[in-house]
Amino acid sequence: MKIAVAVVGALGAGYLLTAARASTRMYGFSAPAAAREQSLERRFQLLPTPAKARDAHAFLTAEPHVAGSPRDRVLAEWVRDRWREYGLEQIEITTHDVLLPYPTDMRVEMTSPGGRGEHGERWRASFKEEPVDGDPYSAREVGPAYHAYSASGDVTAPVVYAGSGNPADYDWLAAHGVDIKGKIALVRYSVPYSYRGYKALTAEQRGAAGILIYSDPADDGFKKGKVYPNGPWGPESHIQRGGVVYDFRVPGDPLTPGWASLPGAKRIPAADALSLPKIMSAPLSWKDARVILSALGGPDAPAAWQGGLPMKYHVGAGPAAVHMRVRMDDAIRPIWTVDARITGTTEPDQLVIVGNHRDAWVYGGVDPSSGTSSLMELARSLGTLARQGARPKRTIVFASWDAEEFTLTSSTEWGEQHARELSDHAVAYLNVDSSASGPNFGAAAVPALNRLIAEAADAVIDPDTGRSVADVFRTSRHDVGALPTAGGGDLVNNRLGSGSDYTVFLNFLGVPIVDMSFSGPYGVYHSIYDNHMWMTKFGDPGFRYHAAMTRLWGVMALRLANANVVPLDYQAYPPRLREFVRELVTRAPAYRTALAPIDAAISRLETAANRMQRRIDTALGTQRIVGTNSTAGTRSTTASIDQALIAAERGFIDRDGIPDRPWYRHLIYAPKPTYAAEVLPGIAEAIEAGDRARVADQVSRLTAALNRVAGALER
Amino acid sequence: MKIAVAVVGALGAGYLLTAARASTRMYGFSAPAAAREQSLERRFQLLPTPAKARDAHAFLTAEPHVAGSPRDRVLAEWVRDRWREYGLEQIEITTHDVLLPYPTDMRVEMTSPGGRGEHGERWRASFKEEPVDGDPYSAREVGPAYHAYSASGDVTAPVVYAGSGNPADYDWLAAHGVDIKGKIALVRYSVPYSYRGYKALTAEQRGAAGILIYSDPADDGFKKGKVYPNGPWGPESHIQRGGVVYDFRVPGDPLTPGWASLPGAKRIPAADALSLPKIMSAPLSWKDARVILSALGGPDAPAAWQGGLPMKYHVGAGPAAVHMRVRMDDAIRPIWTVDARITGTTEPDQLVIVGNHRDAWVYGGVDPSSGTSSLMELARSLGTLARQGARPKRTIVFASWDAEEFTLTSSTEWGEQHARELSDHAVAYLNVDSSASGPNFGAAAVPALNRLIAEAADAVIDPDTGRSVADVFRTSRHDVGALPTAGGGDLVNNRLGSGSDYTVFLNFLGVPIVDMSFSGPYGVYHSIYDNHMWMTKFGDPGFRYHAAMTRLWGVMALRLANANVVPLDYQAYPPRLREFVRELVTRAPAYRTALAPIDAAISRLETAANRMQRRIDTALGTQRIVGTNSTAGTRSTTASIDQALIAAERGFIDRDGIPDRPWYRHLIYAPKPTYAAEVLPGIAEAIEAGDRARVADQVSRLTAALNRVAGALER
Repeated sequence: MKIAVAVVGALGAGYLLTAARASTRMYGFSAPAAAREQSLERRFQLLPTPAKARDAHAFLTAEPHVAGSPRDRVLAEWVRDRWREYGLEQIEITTHDVLLPYPTDMRVEMTSPGGRGEHGERWRASFKEEPVDGDPYSAREVGPAYHAYSASGDVTAPVVYAGSGNPADYDWLAAHGVDIKGKIALVRYSVPYSYRGYKALTAEQRGAAGILIYSDPADDGFKKGKVYPNGPWGPESHIQRGGVVYDFRVPGDPLTPGWASLPGAKRIPAADALSLPKIMSAPLSWKDARVILSALGGPDAPAAWQGGLPMKYHVGAGPAAVHMRVRMDDAIRPIWTVDARITGTTEPDQLVIVGNHRDAWVYGGVDPSSGTSSLMELARSLGTLARQGARPKRTIVFASWDAEEFTLTSSTEWGEQHARELSDHAVAYLNVDSSASGPNFGAAAVPALNRLIAEAADAVIDPDTGRSVADVFRTSRHDVGALPTAGGGDLVNNRLGSGSDYTVFLNFLGVPIVDMSFSGPYGVYHSIYDNHMWMTKFGDPGFRYHAAMTRLWGVMALRLANANVVPLDYQAYPPRLREFVRELVTRAPAYRTALAPIDAAISRLETAANRMQRRIDTALGTQRIVGTNSTAGTRSTTASIDQALIAAERGFIDRDGIPDRPWYRHLIYAPKPTYAAEVLPGIAEAIEAGDRARVADQVSRLTAALNRVAGALER
Repeated sequence: MKIAVAVVGALGAGYLLTAARASTRMYGFSAPAAAREQSLERRFQLLPTPAKARDAHAFLTAEPHVAGSPRDRVLAEWVRDRWREYGLEQIEITTHDVLLPYPTDMRVEMTSPGGRGEHGERWRASFKEEPVDGDPYSAREVGPAYHAYSASGDVTAPVVYAGSGNPADYDWLAAHGVDIKGKIALVRYSVPYSYRGYKALTAEQRGAAGILIYSDPADDGFKKGKVYPNGPWGPESHIQRGGVVYDFRVPGDPLTPGWASLPGAKRIPAADALSLPKIMSAPLSWKDARVILSALGGPDAPAAWQGGLPMKYHVGAGPAAVHMRVRMDDAIRPIWTVDARITGTTEPDQLVIVGNHRDAWVYGGVDPSSGTSSLMELARSLGTLARQGARPKRTIVFASWDAEEFTLTSSTEWGEQHARELSDHAVAYLNVDSSASGPNFGAAAVPALNRLIAEAADAVIDPDTGRSVADVFRTSRHDVGALPTAGGGDLVNNRLGSGSDYTVFLNFLGVPIVDMSFSGPYGVYHSIYDNHMWMTKFGDPGFRYHAAMTRLWGVMALRLANANVVPLDYQAYPPRLREFVRELVTRAPAYRTALAPIDAAISRLETAANRMQRRIDTALGTQRIVGTNSTAGTRSTTASIDQALIAAERGFIDRDGIPDRPWYRHLIYAPKPTYAAEVLPGIAEAIEAGDRARVADQVSRLTAALNRVAGALER
């Protein structure tokens, strides 16, 4: 036996080693294909350059370009023209006409205490940021800061400071005799991040007459570190603009929920739109909020609500009272999605989609122009390869979304518009919103993509350290202590909420998605200071992480496009699903029996995924059993595997959606109103409601979904 | 039977009811004596007036009067003269010559970063507070702020911010690679309160070259509420002066540890004095500390160290470096204790002692002049009664201490001087340091006094509410939820640390003590702003709580002086002792068996205390058994009970003291270095040291002490 082994070793070792390495490092590829891919990727990784990313960034951030504005249109055309220049195909600008309100009047003025200025004027919030030294961008007139989809209204009322504006905060107020009804709630943008629309909804539900949301220095200002222009944190007058729309109920144009806003499309009355707030909402800097906060009396705010301002916070109500007026124009405006393709050679129908939004609240230094410049470099680099004849097997689709900042609008409309094609043929959607506000890699994805992401992060170098992105990530996560796993689950966050353009792909269509970025200290989000100057001073001064993101993004897209079988790994799902179920049982042990049927369905999925893996290994000759010959599968074998793998994730979609949110159809993931991830949302919410019948229904829907996924893999 | 009961009821109800009420409400009194006492107290309670307390306060706080200063001497003579005027007897001023260093040079100047002022000067800490509007006191020149008993020295070194300066904080620094050796530690005065001397000792033990302690606005400044002169909290330049002496090892003159500093007394060399710091220490305002803090680099300080300043706190070391120089004159100075008596009628040898210190860091608005003016009203009121012929049975001793602020100096020297008389005859010592910085009553005492304190707090009206002090206390302690108990244990804190003049009585002599105050928001402790203006604006504008404290103090003193048997309740000890032992076992279960012998000793004490209670009830005719006649005990019975009760607490004294702290001789209580209470200190420290032999020795010492107490009660 010893000799026999040695003989096989002598004959096959070199090849088998390569194959084995490729099989762990390049999922979905046969050994020869992996070798070709590695050589292609070597060429690809040399193409993106920091200098070109910087140039694109400077252009994209030269002017404010809020969705629907003339400059936004100019940039759509610029993107189109560049993509044409780079050799992309089927370039199109799609116009969607959507509800996109701009403000016509923003007013918050203090009526009590009755102090007046030199000229007898009352104090007013400015809704405007102040210029800072050495930053000409900050000196431009950019219009008042506002909250998209705020209701219009006019009210004068005492103010109540309500902490972070979560339900528990209003409960605290009520327990301390402070009534929010008819008052104006003043709340802070919180840490950890919670979606501002949830604050608006909570204030609305509690009967407040209006809500003001301000940036406390403890959250993103001087309590975090040096402030702009001396550091990356938010200075006193910075304002976080943003939508307050309830898109955790349904995203996209509020008047066309579930279908595309194309000419002639039905529009529902605004009054019927589930996602439109009925409360006035406005953002404040702490410089302005402080004037109101320091005029509040009443009980001391509890310790957790005490922010970073040098004062004791009180909750009111009053004596501070304000006159708040918001007038929105409620206009229908055009927005512009740019898309293009590099058509695949052998599987042109199968679509690997990369996307980023283009619209910005002001200049969009980080959000989203860092991502947009990484996308432009990606288009240029992949276009260059295509022109050199190195075309992908599958089609790569590029998208430049619009009005993400309003309510993920253009990606949602585009996804609804192309639902059929995407549902049938989309392999994956790779989203990058902000690509770089610092050096720390983060990725959130469905489990099926864990392995691909981990392998790509192994293949791309972290600019600061010269080590791989994956290696740096793993050694810096001291607090987690996870060991690297072949599946990549330690690198990827598998809890998907909402807040960027992947939502329609994941939650409406059931397409595997990843959302990624490099991040760092960043206190100027959605403010005038989020601009080219901030980026060159703090976020990514050398634009090296912009280029690194292009490399990561491109390696993932290329592997998805070139693999012998699409690199989706369903073996990663069962452990996560068991984890999610265990959490529910821990939270609500009374439902243990009710949830029991899920276990069997997970086991069936596990068996199907394991069997699929063996099929893939056989087809690609990547199994490690010595003696099985490395005959890569025929085209028809891999095609049928591709079909199964592409179909599998769709199985999680339930056509009825989760109760009360029919647009959210994925049964594993939905956003909470905070945008945080809710896993097994249908069941979790039924348990929360204490509705046993609904729990049973949702359990049977989930097991049916798991069986659909298993069935797809078994086919 | 029914009829018989009715007959007894008809005959005896009136009397029995009164007796029963008196027996629960006026511990130690027979019914007729209680009735007389009530009538006397009614007269007494009318005598103290807020107006007279205000006048005394205005005089006492008119000038700074630090210990040993000419003004301190003037006030000693003023106290003597007033007491003479009020009719007190045996009035004496005792001079003790003690080590009482004043500073000759205080310097903290920044050497790095190298920025200089207009005239090329380096930045220097001011050690001086700024005048505030409307407060002429704050505009006076009062000399540099300092830390009494700081070492002298001169060093230039980088600064390290070490949080609160506790051992765990230095451990955190070490774990994060920040070396404190040879550096200057900058730490904050912490909340909850921790003695500054412990910070100095910790810095010394960790090898720091000096320590700067500053008042963070999160602890006593703007993060707590409005600052002086607009509110009670500390403004930016306020400085907390204070001693840093290690008097948790031994208090009083550092050069005469354990004996009185009388002419001809032996003095040990300063180098041998256990209580003298070997490190330089100085206090800073946050206004000055901020300059240094904001020039620190290095790691971010952990969340718990982030204070209220509008910035991110870093720990250093450096780049900020300072040149620190402290020169103390190390002079021996005279200090003056004033004492006086109202001699008792039938038990003149038995001493009920009331005391308060007179010396202040500056004006001493709260600390101690509020207490001093309450004491002056007490002397005037009891003197008035005595002149009217209403003399107490036992002698009441009045004491105006000096140099408490340095190291509890004059009370310690006086206690050591009169140790024999006090040990034989002191019934109790009633301490009031600050009497009123607000309306919230607090008392800490040995358990034997719980019942007296609770009854007195029932008898005195809270000025704000018109309800009893006890009632207000109990209804405002929402967080504790304790039900009122006959023993008063819910009202009184039975964990005694250190920090005021009761220490020599409790820990050295074994005399029952109580320490009490009315408190409220108070951010100007030991600063120039703690003055008459602050008191009239915030602390006790109407001086009604000053007068209420006089009433409480007087009711306690009168009951102690007039009761048929001294109202010390040893039944209160066993439950507390069991609680203390249980805590040790919970903390160190391995010592359960070693601690077991204590249980039996507690049970013996309990039996003895219960039997003593029955003896008292019999002697006073206050037992509730119908049919036992109400023949109050004879003088000889009550005298022997008094002897037993007075001797009992002394039983807790171990002549050898607790290991390494021979001056601290009470086996139930000692201060931790933080001044917090350490209960069963000998055992607790032996357990902490992991020294089983010492634990066994301390357990046998404690059981011997408990047997001494039980034995005293059994006699």
